[in-house]
Formats: sequence, C-alpha cells, structure tokens
Amino acid sequence: MTDDKPLVGIVYGSPTDIELVEAAAKVLERFGVGFEAVQLSAHRSPEQTATYAEEASARGLKVLVGIAGMAAHLAGALASRTPLPVIGVPAQGPGLGGLDALLSTVQMPAGVPVATVAVGSAGAKNASLLAVQVLALSDPDLSRKLVEFKKEQAEKKVL
Amino acid sequence: MTDDKPLVGIVYGSPTDIELVEAAAKVLERFGVGFEAVQLSAHRSPEQTATYAEEASARGLKVLVGIAGMAAHLAGALASRTPLPVIGVPAQGPGLGGLDALLSTVQMPAGVPVATVAVGSAGAKNASLLAVQVLALSDPDLSRKLVEFKKEQAEKKVL
Amino acid sequence: MTDDKPLVGIVYGSPTDIELVEAAAKVLERFGVGFEAVQLSAHRSPEQTATYAEEASARGLKVLVGIAGMAAHLAGALASRTPLPVIGVPAQGPGLGGLDALLSTVQMPAGVPVATVAVGSAGAKNASLLAVQVLALSDPDLSRKLVEFKKEQAEKKVL
Amino acid sequence: MTDDKPLVGIVYGSPTDIELVEAAAKVLERFGVGFEAVQLSAHRSPEQTATYAEEASARGLKVLVGIAGMAAHLAGALASRTPLPVIGVPAQGPGLGGLDALLSTVQMPAGVPVATVAVGSAGAKNASLLAVQVLALSDPDLSRKLVEFKKEQAEKKVL
Amino acid sequence: MTDDKPLVGIVYGSPTDIELVEAAAKVLERFGVGFEAVQLSAHRSPEQTATYAEEASARGLKVLVGIAGMAAHLAGALASRTPLPVIGVPAQGPGLGGLDALLSTVQMPAGVPVATVAVGSAGAKNASLLAVQVLALSDPDLSRKLVEFKKEQAEKKVL
Amino acid sequence: MTDDKPLVGIVYGSPTDIELVEAAAKVLERFGVGFEAVQLSAHRSPEQTATYAEEASARGLKVLVGIAGMAAHLAGALASRTPLPVIGVPAQGPGLGGLDALLSTVQMPAGVPVATVAVGSAGAKNASLLAVQVLALSDPDLSRKLVEFKKEQAEKKVL
Amino acid sequence: MTDDKPLVGIVYGSPTDIELVEAAAKVLERFGVGFEAVQLSAHRSPEQTATYAEEASARGLKVLVGIAGMAAHLAGALASRTPLPVIGVPAQGPGLGGLDALLSTVQMPAGVPVATVAVGSAGAKNASLLAVQVLALSDPDLSRKLVEFKKEQAEKKVL
Amino acid sequence: MTDDKPLVGIVYGSPTDIELVEAAAKVLERFGVGFEAVQLSAHRSPEQTATYAEEASARGLKVLVGIAGMAAHLAGALASRTPLPVIGVPAQGPGLGGLDALLSTVQMPAGVPVATVAVGSAGAKNASLLAVQVLALSDPDLSRKLVEFKKEQAEKKVL
Repeated sequence: MTDDKPLVGIVYGSPTDIELVEAAAKVLERFGVGFEAVQLSAHRSPEQTATYAEEASARGLKVLVGIAGMAAHLAGALASRTPLPVIGVPAQGPGLGGLDALLSTVQMPAGVPVATVAVGSAGAKNASLLAVQVLALSDPDLSRKLVEFKKEQAEKKVL
Repeated sequence: MTDDKPLVGIVYGSPTDIELVEAAAKVLERFGVGFEAVQLSAHRSPEQTATYAEEASARGLKVLVGIAGMAAHLAGALASRTPLPVIGVPAQGPGLGGLDALLSTVQMPAGVPVATVAVGSAGAKNASLLAVQVLALSDPDLSRKLVEFKKEQAEKKVL
Repeated sequence: MTDDKPLVGIVYGSPTDIELVEAAAKVLERFGVGFEAVQLSAHRSPEQTATYAEEASARGLKVLVGIAGMAAHLAGALASRTPLPVIGVPAQGPGLGGLDALLSTVQMPAGVPVATVAVGSAGAKNASLLAVQVLALSDPDLSRKLVEFKKEQAEKKVL
Repeated sequence: MTDDKPLVGIVYGSPTDIELVEAAAKVLERFGVGFEAVQLSAHRSPEQTATYAEEASARGLKVLVGIAGMAAHLAGALASRTPLPVIGVPAQGPGLGGLDALLSTVQMPAGVPVATVAVGSAGAKNASLLAVQVLALSDPDLSRKLVEFKKEQAEKKVL
Repeated sequence: MTDDKPLVGIVYGSPTDIELVEAAAKVLERFGVGFEAVQLSAHRSPEQTATYAEEASARGLKVLVGIAGMAAHLAGALASRTPLPVIGVPAQGPGLGGLDALLSTVQMPAGVPVATVAVGSAGAKNASLLAVQVLALSDPDLSRKLVEFKKEQAEKKVL
Repeated sequence: MTDDKPLVGIVYGSPTDIELVEAAAKVLERFGVGFEAVQLSAHRSPEQTATYAEEASARGLKVLVGIAGMAAHLAGALASRTPLPVIGVPAQGPGLGGLDALLSTVQMPAGVPVATVAVGSAGAKNASLLAVQVLALSDPDLSRKLVEFKKEQAEKKVL
Repeated sequence: MTDDKPLVGIVYGSPTDIELVEAAAKVLERFGVGFEAVQLSAHRSPEQTATYAEEASARGLKVLVGIAGMAAHLAGALASRTPLPVIGVPAQGPGLGGLDALLSTVQMPAGVPVATVAVGSAGAKNASLLAVQVLALSDPDLSRKLVEFKKEQAEKKVL
Repeated sequence: MTDDKPLVGIVYGSPTDIELVEAAAKVLERFGVGFEAVQLSAHRSPEQTATYAEEASARGLKVLVGIAGMAAHLAGALASRTPLPVIGVPAQGPGLGGLDALLSTVQMPAGVPVATVAVGSAGAKNASLLAVQVLALSDPDLSRKLVEFKKEQAEKKVL
C-alpha cells in the first residue's frame, strides 16, 4: 500500500485471491496511485461489503475493484451500493477455467454495470490500469504518465 | 397466491421472469403450500433484497426461492442474509442459453449454499417441489401428498 | 461418522470421490448432525442404489446427498426413488472440468428435483450446510447453531 | 410399428421426444426390422424403466435405444439394468442446445457403456442405423441390405 | 445525438449493431451527456479506426465505447491507440450466442484493458451508465443525477 | 493381443493414444475376445485407413473401435467405409479438455453412425465392453460372461 | 459458375449448405475467379470425395473449399488427399451453434492443415476471399483487384 | 532462421509464444522456405504491427503467420493491413483452454479472412505447412517436396 490517500479500493473475496491483489497493487504503485486492499465476501460478509461500498465515495475512493472467483458476485454487490465505477476481475477457480467467474461478473443486468477485465493476473493488472485511465481524466500528471507508459509499452512488454 | 400463511417466499429479479414465477406457483398451489411472490433485484434494489432475506425467518417463511437470469446473484444474495434454505432458479436470457445464470447461481463458495435447479420452467417447477420436499419433513400431511404425487407421476407426466 | 443417529445419507459413486465425502462429513460433524456414508453407483449397482433410496425415509434419514462425476446420475437416481430432498454434488473428472457432472446433476426434468451445489469441494461442504439448513427448520438447537455460524463466518472464513 | 417381432426397443422420456422416435422408426421400417416404442422416464417412472430393461433380453429384444433431453439419464438407466447394447440419443431442450443431454448420455463411467449418437434427428436416425448394423452381424439378409444402403447413399442423400 | 459537446465516442463495427447503439444513446441522453456515434471497423477500416482513437483525447472525448460482434476486436483496437478508458460491448452474432464476441473483447492482455460489459442490449445500456459513472467523478452535477438514478432504480426498473 | 481370431479391430490415431488402447485391450482380454490394434490416421494415412475399413468385414472383424483426439475423424472415416458397427473413443488433447474430439466423433450426420463413448480411459474401457455386448448377441458364452460381469460389478468396482 | 477455367473447387456436404455455397460463389465471381461447386460427403460418399481431392491438382484446381456442418470432416478429408491448400467453412447446425463444426474443422492434427474461417456466411465469403488472396500471389491482376477491394472496403461494407 | 530470403513472416504476440514459433520454424526449415520471426503486439505496439503488415508485401513476404493467445487480435490486425494471406495460430493461455484465442482468431467478419489452424503446437506446425502449400502453388520444387512429404507421412508420423 502506498502512502498516498487511497483513491482505489481493491476488495477481494478470499485469501486465495491474494496473488491477484498483488498484481493489481504493483500497477497502482507504478503510477503512484494510492489504494487500499480489503478482504470482504459478498456472501459470507454481505453487511460489511455493503457498508464498504456505501461509504466508499464519502471516504474519498474514486474507483472500486472487486476480485472474486466461482459465482463471483463481489464486484456486482459493490456496484449495487455505490455510484462509483466498479471494475471486476474474475479469478480462476478449479474446474471451469474461470468461465463461471467471468460470466458471473460480466453479465450484469441493465442498470448496474461492472467493468469486467480478463480472467486472472492479466485482468488484475488491467483493472488497475483501467482505474488509472479513469483517474487520469481529471489528473493531468497521471495522464502524462499514462501516455509515457503506452510509449514505453510499444517498445517492450512492461506489465 | 393461496390463502394459507406463506411458507415459501418466491423472489424474482425482473418482470420477464413472471412466467417462471407462475410455473413455480402452480406447483405450490397443487400441494396447498402458502407462498408469496415479490419482485426484488440483488443489483437494483439491494437494500430491499437484504431486508427481505433478513426478515424472512421471523416472518414465518421457511424456504426462499430466487429466480433470476444473466449474472444471477439473487439467490446468492438472499442466501447471504438468511439461515433459511434458498433455492435458485436460473432464467434463460438471450444469447448464452442460461449458462451464465446457471453458473452464477450454482457455483457458490463454501459457506453459503444455493440449492440450484434446472434452467427455465422445469427448474421453476422443481424449485417448488423441492420446497415441498423440505417442508414435508416436518409435515406428515404434505409428506403423504408427496408420496401420492410420486406414484401418480410414475403413471403419467404430471408437471 | 458421528455417534448420533444418521439423519443425512451421503452416497458417493466412486472411491475417487472420498475427498469430497470427507469435506461434507466435516461440516456435518461441526454441527453435530448424524450421518452415514455409503458407496453406491447408479450405473454399476442400480438395484442397491434404488433400495437405499426407497428405504431411506423409513430408516429415519431426512436428507440424501449424492456425489458423483462424469454423467452424474447418482443424485437423480436417488431422487427418483424417494420423497426426501436430495442434494447433488458434481465431482470434477478429467477433461471437461466438471461441466459434464454439473449438467447431468442440475438439469433434472420437471417432477424430480435435485438441489445442486457447486462442482467439487466447495459444493461438498455446501451440500452438508444445506442439509443442516433443512434440518434446522424443525430443530431450534440446530437453527441457533446456524445463526451463530453465519455470524462467525462474517468475521472470518470458516469452511 | 412393423408386424415383425420387435428386436429393437425404443424408449423415450417425454411426449416432446416423439418426433425423434418417428425419425428412428422410419429407418427401422426401411430395413424391415421390428421394433416397439414405449414412453418411460428414468426419473418419473424408475421402477417401470428398470423392469423394462431387465426383461428386455428375455422378451427377445436385442438392442435398446434411449431418447431423452436435459439431464438425460434414460439410456444410462437402461444400460445399468441389461447386458444388451444400449444406444443413447440426446434430445435438444431449450437453452443449452442439447449439450446437457449429450454430456449426460455419453460421459458414462467405466463398466456401463452407452453408445451415443448425435444430438437430435440425425442422432435418432443413426441410432436405428447403428441398431441395424449390430443386428446385421448375425443376419446375412440385413447385412446385404446395409451394403446396398451404403452404395445408394454414396449416390444421393438417403436419410 | 445531444447538442452538448460529445464526451463519449460510440464506435460500432457494423450496421447490424445499430440497435445497440440506440440503447446506449438513450442512456447518455437521459443523463444529458454529449456523445457521437460513428461506424468504423477494426478490420475493414483499420486506419480510420486508429486515427479516430488517436485523436479522441485531443478532440475532447473522455470515454470510448466499442460495440462489435464475432471476433470483436474493435474495443481492443481503440484501446491500443488511446490512453482514454475504453468500454467494450460484445454483440451477439448468429450461432455462438455472443461467446465469441465476449471472449474477444474481455480477454485483453496485460497492458491494454477494455472495460467489458454484458453481451447485447443490457451491455449497451450499461456501457453508457459506466461512462456516466466515470464522467461523474469530476462532475458534481452528473454525480447527483447518478445518485438519484440509483434511488429511483431501487423503486422500479428504469433501464 | 489374445491368441483368438480377432473380432474387434482397434484403430488409434497417434502413439500418444496407446494408453487408451491398452485400457480397451484389457477389457477384451478379460472377456476372451480376440482383437488387433493398429495405428492409422484418417488424415495422415487416409488410404490405409480406407483399406483397413473396407477389408475389415471380409477379414472376419465384427466391430471396429476408433480412438483419436482433436478433430477426431478416425471413427467417422472407418464408419464411412464399412457396414460394421464402429465405436468412437474421443481422446483428450491439450487445451479443450476433449470437447473437440467428443463433438468431432459423436456429431455424425444421418446415414453414418459412430457409437460414441466417454472421453478418455473410461470411454476406452467402455468401447470394449460395448463391443462385447454386441458380440454377445450371437455368442451365448459371451452373453453368460456379461451377465456375470454385471453381477460382480454390482458388488465392487471392476473396471 | 463463371466461364473461366475453375481454379477453386467448392465442395459442400449437404443440400442445406447451398446458401453458404452461393455466398462463397458471389465473392469469387466478383473477382472473376473460375470455380466449380460439387456436393460430396466425407461420410456418405467417401470414395468420390477421395477421388475428387486426389485429382484436383491434376485437373488444374489450386485451392479447395470444404463446407460442412456437425462433425464436419469434409475439409479434413479433402486435405488428407491433396497437397493443395484446403479451406474449411464450418456450417451451423441445430443445437450447438456451429461449435461442433468449428472444432471438427479447425482442430486438425499436425501434418494436415485446414485453413479454417468463421462459422456460417461470414466464413463462406471469407473462404473465397482467402482463396483469392492465395491465387493473387502469382497473379498480378488479381493482386491489384485485391488492393482495390481493400481500399473500397475501408470506405463502406462491401461483402 | 534460414539463409533464404524470407517468404513467410511469423509474428508472435508475447515471449511466452516462443515455443510455438520454434515449432512453426522447424517445419519451414524442413521445406527450405525462408522466413523471419518478429515479436509484435496488436495491442501494445499497434503502430509497428500495422507498419509491418503494410510493408510485408513490398518486402517480398508472401504469407504472414500470427501467433497469439487470449483475445488474440494479432492475425486479424495483420490481415486488416495487407492483401497477403494471413494464417492465425491460437495460443493456449491459462484457464479457458485456448477457446478465447480460437474464437478471437477464427470468427473474423466478412471481408477480412484469417486462415485459422488448431490451438497450440499442432496449429503452429500446420501454419507453416499451410504456408508451404500456398507457396508451392507457384513453386514446382516445393510442390514436389510436399507430395513426398505426404507420402512419407502416410508411412509414419513425421511432424
């Protein structure tokens, strides 16, 4: 976690998702974007999850990221309780290759979007990058960093 | 809805699910089991959904049925807020044939089960039948009706 | 197996399912619910499976759990022969990630429900938890334990 | 149904499968192979299904064909009760395109094979053709007809 | 198209996607967010697509939405050429139910995110809503409208 | 291979399928059914495959078994050239879990059936068992063995 | 069919594929490339199919196109008998949305490639376009037409 | 890389694809066909990818091969910028077994074909073989080698 005031709230459903949290965290650190990471479950701790989402905006968070596997309702549960943009990272569980988490995250009904990224670690990195893109819209410094990142990336694989 | 005190709470996510609600209702009426049906969305009206689930047991409901399509979180959202058994009916949306709703309903993480039945109207009927089977465990009358139903069913297609 | 009179009958199709049986057993033991576990195959020993299901209610069992992989007919075969609620746990075989077992278990036709839970060990644990939820409807003690379990679970991952 | 003594027993799970039964029947009639068609459900009428399969060989049937959709256990249920070869035709239900019926029919565990053919009407025709191929092994007349059929088929689409 | 200066650029791959464009447009109009809609193909007009994406930021656009079916590369192609956040709407084509478009849109490699929403019209509406959520982060008026929208939505289905 | 005159011809597409061949062989040996196993590819050696199938009946073979992975055309290619019943065993390749081989084997068009069994080793064993069931129709000895096998199997897992 | 000497041989498996044949034909006509279209089945008329493929090169054909559905072996069967490049068009059948035909066509083993294009009419058009691209490598006129086609296509949807 | 002037340009999206590049390279070396291999990403380095494709023909390349995983746009991006035939090799990523890459590569819209081969190493080898088949149309030496290769392959597995 950086020293900066957290703008991005990463919520993950299970200790097994910690690798994805770290992948996401590294990208935010690279861009100097403050964040926090908390473990909450849409199913096991629904009240805390609801409270977290409802207070997120007032606490100064700008973007939420939900990381979960199987019937991955976490990002959707956050999105149902906040006007902030919510990004969903489907985690790969045993068996179905993450297709369950992907469909549970992306197929949200009209009215409550979840910005879904790829299954697994590519998705975790991209969730943070997407958060940076969103924040950069009103942060010229961040915007410059993004443009440089894209240039650098065109030369060699960065993430 | 029957005149009996509702024991089964059928919750559906969207007006487009009404046909499934009716299929489920007919089975409960056949067995004389009281029920109620309410439209609530895990995503659009999360607070009402939470309240409904949290009050269900105290209100005398014994079994909840959640009917929803796409990223079908409704049954899981109910299950996260009540100790009552929750049955999930995946509804078929456009495109993915209900596979999205099925996986979103059935692949619940350890700790919060949803008793999932088939996609669509067969599932809706079976949700009610499953509720009847559960209620019959402590209701000898209902138990007798179930045994008769199974005999009749062996002779001809009933549902 | 606990000393208590078995209320839950866990039936598994193959010795390779034993890990799932143990996962299910631990949950029932935690709640002090008596159970028995027997290996039976819908395909290799259909007569014994039929007899087991037909005698289950008279023997005092309240809920059956069927654990099987591939063309997983076990839970459905049990359900066809008993008015008791039957819970199906799809086991993951080689290759198709458990999708075969999931669809074979959940897509039951109208008239014979199987309460299906997630593929693999999360499903096995949840099968027992669902059985506990069903039994708790007429057992205030068990009901209290469930409420406590849900509270504890909101604090930390329990299962 | 032909006047000949039935050698093939076509069992179908639901009235909605009747079109597939007729497609299968036409092929058997073309080859002059006697058959019977009965509606039985592995789930709704398990005892009758078991009895039918157990008596099939003694009644002079040589091949059984099971036609069913969804969690299509019918062919497997027949196969569990008879040493006769059993052919399974997956029927397409709503939603999952017949993938559920296909996997439920073909993914049988070691020890109890079901000879599975294509989903739907192509499969129904081929079930009968496969039955003819099996019967032709000990019926030189039928064998000659098959060879002619294959020649004719090479010229134009026959079935 | 509204009279306001366009902040959202909706790009669609084929005339057959026009219904989805309209669904997206209605939501933006409801929130009074200016937008433009242009037909461009990542495959048939790659140069124009690249130019559009590269000039988008300088032209004052804040969010891009790519709507496409089959091997839906449109959103990814836009994202490869702009630091702006890009939202992808998978369109359902014949046959594969939109699974092809969904996977082609969401499974982006690390470094180039596409914020993917549901297949079809629910996704199209949610793409606009997501764009509104992003824009609302630096627009208090829009933010207020969003909060009201969520309240209204909790009462009745709005989109 | 047994000393008996081969009645079953096992054809496999690649050296990587040898484990499946051995699984199939063991079952035939158990029943004392003569067989031969040859490596042929529908794609790399189409002429030899065609010749093998065309001569199979005259050489005294009664049933052919085709074992292949990926776009598994082997069983279908054999079936196109012989009036004998052909059994197809889908082999699991890397990546798609055998779904490619399963669909390529089972979805045969009307007129040319392939009796398809499960993906992998369960299927390989069942292919032989199915061949035994077919041969037993005109071999009372084999028929007796099958009945005994089924009895034994009801007691314990045999294959 | 054009008056030009056929360079492309379009082979289709069933009369139901004729719409795809026409879609492919129109593209070849547009480019003035001679072709022929014949109905042959890898399964029903394997000998004619083999002969067609074996004689194709000597008859002056340069590229073969195989159009088929279900267990679509046609393109692979052609490819097994000719050194010419073979293009496969998966046709959508009932139920599985063309996934069966796609996997049966594309998943060819090492040594016998099939150049597979999209399921259905987009694929049929692209098969011809791909053939044109191949032929244009040694035909400057055709090459010029292709370059113009691509320019025109960048302006508006052409195929 | 051979000393010959490159006729085939192999483009791969990520260092993790290098094994597939080597598999493809070996086949081209076997046939003495010159090639080059470059790492470029449709998403991270879109401009270089576009330039590579646009200059390919003038630089003397005849066939391009694109190897990529996940939302595999590489082959399609090349095809959008060159009249040369482009072959796509879907690489298997984690989780979805390569289905994502396969659908992203093969489901190209009408007007921009990608000649898609199997997922993974079989596909990589076949991409080169397909390139050889295309080049052999105007190279009698290569054509002779191909005919010999097919003969040799009919005797034993070569690739």
